[in-house]
Amino acid sequence: YIIILCLSNRTEENNVWEPSQARKLGPYFHDGRRRIDYVLTYTVQKPVSMSPTSSGSFVRGLRQSLSRSLRRSTSSAQDDPENASELGCQEDVKRVRREEFEDNLMEMGLELEKDEGTKIPGVGFLKIHAPWDILCREAEFMKLKMPTKKVCPIMIIIQLMKNHNFFNKMTKPLQPNVEDSKMETIKHLSYPFSREKQHLFDLSDKDSFFNSKNRSLIVHGVLKRTKCVRGKHNVGLISLLGNGVYTSAYPLHDVSNTSLLLYDEWARYSIFYKYQPIGLIRKYFGEKVGLYFAWLGVYTQMLIPASIVGVIVFLYGCATLDDNIPSMEICDPRNNITMCPLCDRVCNYWKLVAACGTARASHLFDNSATVFFSIFMALWATMFMEHWKRRQMRLNYIWDLTTFEEEEVSGHPRAEYEFRTMQKSVRVDSRRERRGKPKKKVSHHFFASTVKLTCTDRMPAYMTTLVMMCFMICATFVVVLGVVLYRIAIMTALQLTQTPATNVRATVKTTAAIINLIIIIILDEVYGALARWLTVPKTDKSFEERLIIKSFILKFLNSFTPIVYLAFFRGRLVGRPGSYIYVLSSFRMEECAHAGCLMELCIQLCITMLGKQLIQNNLFEIGIPKLKKMLRRRKTGMDTQEEELEKKLRRHEKDHFLGPFIGLSPEYMEMIMQFGMVTLFVASFPLAPLFALLNNVIEIRLDAKKFVKELRRPLAARAKNIGIWYTLLRGISKVAVIVNAFVISFTSDFIPRLVYQYMYSPDGTLHGFVDHQLSFFNVSHFRPGTEPLEPMLGNQKVEVCRYKDYRDSPWSDTPYDFSREFWCILAARLAFVIVFQNVVMLMSDFVDWLIPDIPKEINVQMQKERTLFVEMFMKEEQGKRILWNNQGESPCQPRSTHPLSDYLCTRLDT
Amino acid sequence: YIIILCLSNRTEENNVWEPSQARKLGPYFHDGRRRIDYVLTYTVQKPVSMSPTSSGSFVRGLRQSLSRSLRRSTSSAQDDPENASELGCQEDVKRVRREEFEDNLMEMGLELEKDEGTKIPGVGFLKIHAPWDILCREAEFMKLKMPTKKVCPIMIIIQLMKNHNFFNKMTKPLQPNVEDSKMETIKHLSYPFSREKQHLFDLSDKDSFFNSKNRSLIVHGVLKRTKCVRGKHNVGLISLLGNGVYTSAYPLHDVSNTSLLLYDEWARYSIFYKYQPIGLIRKYFGEKVGLYFAWLGVYTQMLIPASIVGVIVFLYGCATLDDNIPSMEICDPRNNITMCPLCDRVCNYWKLVAACGTARASHLFDNSATVFFSIFMALWATMFMEHWKRRQMRLNYIWDLTTFEEEEVSGHPRAEYEFRTMQKSVRVDSRRERRGKPKKKVSHHFFASTVKLTCTDRMPAYMTTLVMMCFMICATFVVVLGVVLYRIAIMTALQLTQTPATNVRATVKTTAAIINLIIIIILDEVYGALARWLTVPKTDKSFEERLIIKSFILKFLNSFTPIVYLAFFRGRLVGRPGSYIYVLSSFRMEECAHAGCLMELCIQLCITMLGKQLIQNNLFEIGIPKLKKMLRRRKTGMDTQEEELEKKLRRHEKDHFLGPFIGLSPEYMEMIMQFGMVTLFVASFPLAPLFALLNNVIEIRLDAKKFVKELRRPLAARAKNIGIWYTLLRGISKVAVIVNAFVISFTSDFIPRLVYQYMYSPDGTLHGFVDHQLSFFNVSHFRPGTEPLEPMLGNQKVEVCRYKDYRDSPWSDTPYDFSREFWCILAARLAFVIVFQNVVMLMSDFVDWLIPDIPKEINVQMQKERTLFVEMFMKEEQGKRILWNNQGESPCQPRSTHPLSDYLCTRLDT
Repeated sequence: YIIILCLSNRTEENNVWEPSQARKLGPYFHDGRRRIDYVLTYTVQKPVSMSPTSSGSFVRGLRQSLSRSLRRSTSSAQDDPENASELGCQEDVKRVRREEFEDNLMEMGLELEKDEGTKIPGVGFLKIHAPWDILCREAEFMKLKMPTKKVCPIMIIIQLMKNHNFFNKMTKPLQPNVEDSKMETIKHLSYPFSREKQHLFDLSDKDSFFNSKNRSLIVHGVLKRTKCVRGKHNVGLISLLGNGVYTSAYPLHDVSNTSLLLYDEWARYSIFYKYQPIGLIRKYFGEKVGLYFAWLGVYTQMLIPASIVGVIVFLYGCATLDDNIPSMEICDPRNNITMCPLCDRVCNYWKLVAACGTARASHLFDNSATVFFSIFMALWATMFMEHWKRRQMRLNYIWDLTTFEEEEVSGHPRAEYEFRTMQKSVRVDSRRERRGKPKKKVSHHFFASTVKLTCTDRMPAYMTTLVMMCFMICATFVVVLGVVLYRIAIMTALQLTQTPATNVRATVKTTAAIINLIIIIILDEVYGALARWLTVPKTDKSFEERLIIKSFILKFLNSFTPIVYLAFFRGRLVGRPGSYIYVLSSFRMEECAHAGCLMELCIQLCITMLGKQLIQNNLFEIGIPKLKKMLRRRKTGMDTQEEELEKKLRRHEKDHFLGPFIGLSPEYMEMIMQFGMVTLFVASFPLAPLFALLNNVIEIRLDAKKFVKELRRPLAARAKNIGIWYTLLRGISKVAVIVNAFVISFTSDFIPRLVYQYMYSPDGTLHGFVDHQLSFFNVSHFRPGTEPLEPMLGNQKVEVCRYKDYRDSPWSDTPYDFSREFWCILAARLAFVIVFQNVVMLMSDFVDWLIPDIPKEINVQMQKERTLFVEMFMKEEQGKRILWNNQGESPCQPRSTHPLSDYLCTRLDT
Repeated sequence: YIIILCLSNRTEENNVWEPSQARKLGPYFHDGRRRIDYVLTYTVQKPVSMSPTSSGSFVRGLRQSLSRSLRRSTSSAQDDPENASELGCQEDVKRVRREEFEDNLMEMGLELEKDEGTKIPGVGFLKIHAPWDILCREAEFMKLKMPTKKVCPIMIIIQLMKNHNFFNKMTKPLQPNVEDSKMETIKHLSYPFSREKQHLFDLSDKDSFFNSKNRSLIVHGVLKRTKCVRGKHNVGLISLLGNGVYTSAYPLHDVSNTSLLLYDEWARYSIFYKYQPIGLIRKYFGEKVGLYFAWLGVYTQMLIPASIVGVIVFLYGCATLDDNIPSMEICDPRNNITMCPLCDRVCNYWKLVAACGTARASHLFDNSATVFFSIFMALWATMFMEHWKRRQMRLNYIWDLTTFEEEEVSGHPRAEYEFRTMQKSVRVDSRRERRGKPKKKVSHHFFASTVKLTCTDRMPAYMTTLVMMCFMICATFVVVLGVVLYRIAIMTALQLTQTPATNVRATVKTTAAIINLIIIIILDEVYGALARWLTVPKTDKSFEERLIIKSFILKFLNSFTPIVYLAFFRGRLVGRPGSYIYVLSSFRMEECAHAGCLMELCIQLCITMLGKQLIQNNLFEIGIPKLKKMLRRRKTGMDTQEEELEKKLRRHEKDHFLGPFIGLSPEYMEMIMQFGMVTLFVASFPLAPLFALLNNVIEIRLDAKKFVKELRRPLAARAKNIGIWYTLLRGISKVAVIVNAFVISFTSDFIPRLVYQYMYSPDGTLHGFVDHQLSFFNVSHFRPGTEPLEPMLGNQKVEVCRYKDYRDSPWSDTPYDFSREFWCILAARLAFVIVFQNVVMLMSDFVDWLIPDIPKEINVQMQKERTLFVEMFMKEEQGKRILWNNQGESPCQPRSTHPLSDYLCTRLDT
């Protein structure tokens, strides 16, 4: 019945609200004056079988066992084990907790209003309002930087506007139609809010001095600090939420101009070509979300040059298709080369001309422009990082975060962690009782706060994690192996039925790639859940980091193992005619097509990338929610009535039906994986940036819609940077250099061509390269039972066939040993890897060092602001001194400036 | 005459001062009450020919042209060009400037006292004292963190003391005998000083609340901010110093317990084994110097395990000397191998047995333990970085720097820069005059401050820099080439005179290494001066960074080019018998000894390292100053009289005779070069860490003595980290990985041995390796005129001789081509480089990631302090509220808390 209500909350916000109605249904207390800054919800009716909110089974289990242990402790405290109904007792305990928590909040100065089951049965709302003096106090504690009355011209922008009027006009249509994004020529200097320096700030309008974002942040700060101490354990809001004492906590959406503007100028697909109104996003959602969208914007912007260059490289491949000597030689029917069979017994000898199509196609991705493109993309990745660092710094400056230090270095314990420590302390207590020692009743409070999960407690969890991680990584490898076997088996089967060779290959490749894709997507979801389940650290922040690292490792391996296999192992472990390598003693390892595995790598990458984006983003993120909604509507069939009802709902009730905000990690993770696709194997697939660009243009607006319309408003968390994601990005771009070096030198034929041209070619061209690549095999050396059933090709009996490898000929001293050419080319390949890796890394480091992290103009501007402040304070000092002198007092006598000092000193000394 | 006075200022501080005498001669104004916090000096008499202080010619030139331009501007301002004596006028201008500056200082609230030519003729002293209210004001501006009355127990240390009592006793003799270094169990919480929160601080003793370090820092802050605006240009203290208006500026040494304690517990050689009293150093010299010594201490400490492992590796080499199969085979007289001659015509064929000694010796440095040691040292470097990061973080915490942000992001313009902008504006003015436009008289002030050196102005400087840098780098290469030619020439000459081969090699190697060393030391000094001359950026900070980078590049190349040549080029570009490569068409390139160049690399490294340390540190830093002093004494011959005079000198006069503090860059640079020596080629010289350790133990005390006794007290600059030096260290340790990979795989015989053992050896041992390494040469293929004069060896005519290379034999199809073994070993070498580099880099990154940058206990402690503060303020708030409620006022009405608010608001609005 709650789910039924959870319907189209989408149309009503476009309506124009009459002020009176807005006041009534808007985010205010019943008096219509005090603003609701934060809402806590809880269940009020007795649940019939289970709590009605759709929470995961883990949380439910946690709640149950927690309430059981709580019950035990209360009952043992009351000393009379009455047999009250279990659920009723549970509810009572929760109510008692709530009451204590609410008392504490009131003591902190917050104003509360309750709203139990008025329109939505079973849900109670605790609306919280922070009055002006609490806001002041907390803003001072949090060192919240607020704009002062002092303004400072931004010289750089003024200069820019003078010089680049043309530029401005050009970019005008790209700018979102928001006041904020217009270039401002002045900036209100910010200063940490302090009640003693109130004269600095413009406090004429106290209602709007702290905007809704800051108000909710402040209230959240107070909530986090408030603790319930009366029970057995010292628990804060997060634990109360985890235990089900409260069901959810969220700030309210703001049905103001900002919200509407955000929808119009940000969250629509039709304005996909415009810049994002980052300032507005930050104003509404806070710095953390703002940084995510800024990052996404920078990434998408940077993809534009990459995809242009990628397309040019691809076009270059197309244009030079007919000038490519090796593929011309292969396609030349006069070149009458007989190749060894591709499988045992059933396959025939074949003519090299048959590989003509693949050879031509693989030139598209395997030409000298590819090397250039790899280097370009490695530098691109560095430039992207640098560009982002500078953009971040600029945003930090504009958002006044330069001096902000993240406080939650070792934030608050998570609910799960608290639960485990609780279990432990219960265990310790009971053990003590068994030994006959009395329970330490006096020191309970102190005790509970010092119980920590030590190494021994964590050991099982660590071991589980390790084992599970290994197991899952193995699973990934097994899946890849399975796909390989599938490919080999189907290939042989199809060969038996005499299907034409090209069709066989194409079918097998594509089906295998699709199977891979499906498995990847399934495992992705599984791994995400598993990683979550495996992580139990102490604080929210470390939890998030570890969770991210674990799921990153799993998802990364999952996505890239098949590709790595294709790029580096496929076709290398084949053996040679006469002594092939077999897996499971019957399957011969698969070979690549004549022109190398690059083509197949390219197909795999293309399918994985497109498929993941189409299925995961579009199907999962758009399709499924819509389908669900449609189904629900059809089932209930009473649209109009609900809409009516919804219109009457007040703001906090409406927000209750929106999806909870579960953090930015999934969004970042998706993008990081895409970044990996774009950079890691870019040498083999120059169109990757283009695909990524197209996806991201949609992705931005999709996410925007989600944030504005479909989720509860996230807490406006402050953040200076994107944290661990930056580390991961750096890691990927480093690995990309090495991977690309190996792809170019080992997967492509670039190095063998070069070596042939400069060391072996008689005329310095690639003529004869095809012949040079092929070794000879005497068919009489086939192992018995593996020779082809048909010893003839056309009308001729085959005596000697050719295979792609550098080995000595059957008639040399050392038949079938690796030849001198093999070692020479291997050395060249390895040398290329070393040179490429170190040169690109050096260039990246150089670019990194060359571009200063802090943009120069920001530096100058910050310097200027600092001097302005010093000047201002000096003026103030002089003013003060004059005043003091007139009053005949010294300005710096301690305990004279403040009437409270004496009182406080005595208080503090005690 | 000033130089004469500059004598033993070393004995008197050990005397015990009677208090009255201390007050009189100590750092006080004439009234004996006000403390001197800072001293500026200037010249008072008219100089006869030149300014008497020994400043560089650049500064002198600058001063002269500056005063000329100043004179021009003043004369044009006075409008009557009088022909006063040039020097007198110059002095007058300076005096006017000084007067203005002093007026400004007094306006800022500082108290001044002048002391002109009392004891030291020609030198005027301006003594500056900051009274209490100025100290308060500036401390608030600078957000100086001061200890509050609130204390907080340091849990970790308490635990540590409980558990590690034994450990404490063990390390007792290593701890310096200073109260500070004893483990403190409580810490006074620090809070940015604010006059509004005076009740937090313990102000009972106002004289010692700000210690001498903080006082001088504060005064320096005021001095930096004060500007002379009356003249044509807006100049600050740094320019005044550069222009010679003042000759020097320094805070005073503090003849207190701290200073004596520092001497006793830090600056003596006899306590070399003790920890440094870092807290005390910081207290006296400030954070920047403190960080340098802490870094040096950490580095020295970390060298201990490295040198132990190094010695073990060396001993392993010694122990396995007789088990080494290749050298046994070489020394076996039964192995009758005839080698090709080492030079054209005059040299003879020789037996391989002759190389027995070198082969045995090179096993000392070329064994499998070396590979292990290289990996160890790469990880060691990472560990060192991590360890330092953590130590730095701990120090930041203890020194209350965690929230300090470096203000001098784009500090104050340097004197040279100001001078150049001045030149430019004069030029612009004169051009304007020539064009007939009137000089902009009104906007002079504004104009002067906005003239900047643009790209075009800097272009010549940039070009000069670029050309000079290239030229100097070429010079380095030429020097190396010169030494190579010297070696070849001497070698041939000595061969002609029929000296025994081993003597020849030893003599040549050693003399060449010594010549190299001497050139390196000379060029080092030259390059240091040149880099200084080439750098003209805007601010002190960017100046320092660029200067460091430039001189680092030059000195680094200078030190390491000869070594790189030896390691990677020597013996590679030789050619083969019958087609040798010649330089300058007559010198055959030099070969290595049979067992590889590693031995020679080792000798070179050893000589460079020891020589540099002995000569640069001991001779330059200790010897020459002592020698100078001795000479001076002998010349004047009146020791006792001077000592008498010196005793009567007051503190600021004594400090005047000490050397100026020129920054920490030379000290850091020396250490960074040493770090390069220790890590870069450690694969070839495992004793390097030991040498470095021995040097550093002395170095610490040497530097300590210098800082305590021989230099003026440096400004107590605040710094959070060691800045660019950390970047350079990181860079070196990255390069070290690659260099070591190449040394192991290309310079040593490690890879050929491995390849032989696993691919070619008949029995899996190294027997036959020596033979396998040598190719055959048919002596009839010598180019005419290059065959040896003596075609016989012993009694036999030589038909075929052997040389060290992997080439086909004369009787194969492709005589003297690189053989399959060559390519195979090359591939193995390259593969090793790739594997080594990436594995070690991965391990380093892993270690880096594994060890958190912020130690856990510091994190916990900081968290605890934060909550303590919040609690304290909450208590205060409650107290306030009670008080306000009693008075019937609301605590948060703006403009009611502060009597000044109204006044200030009106002031600010205007």
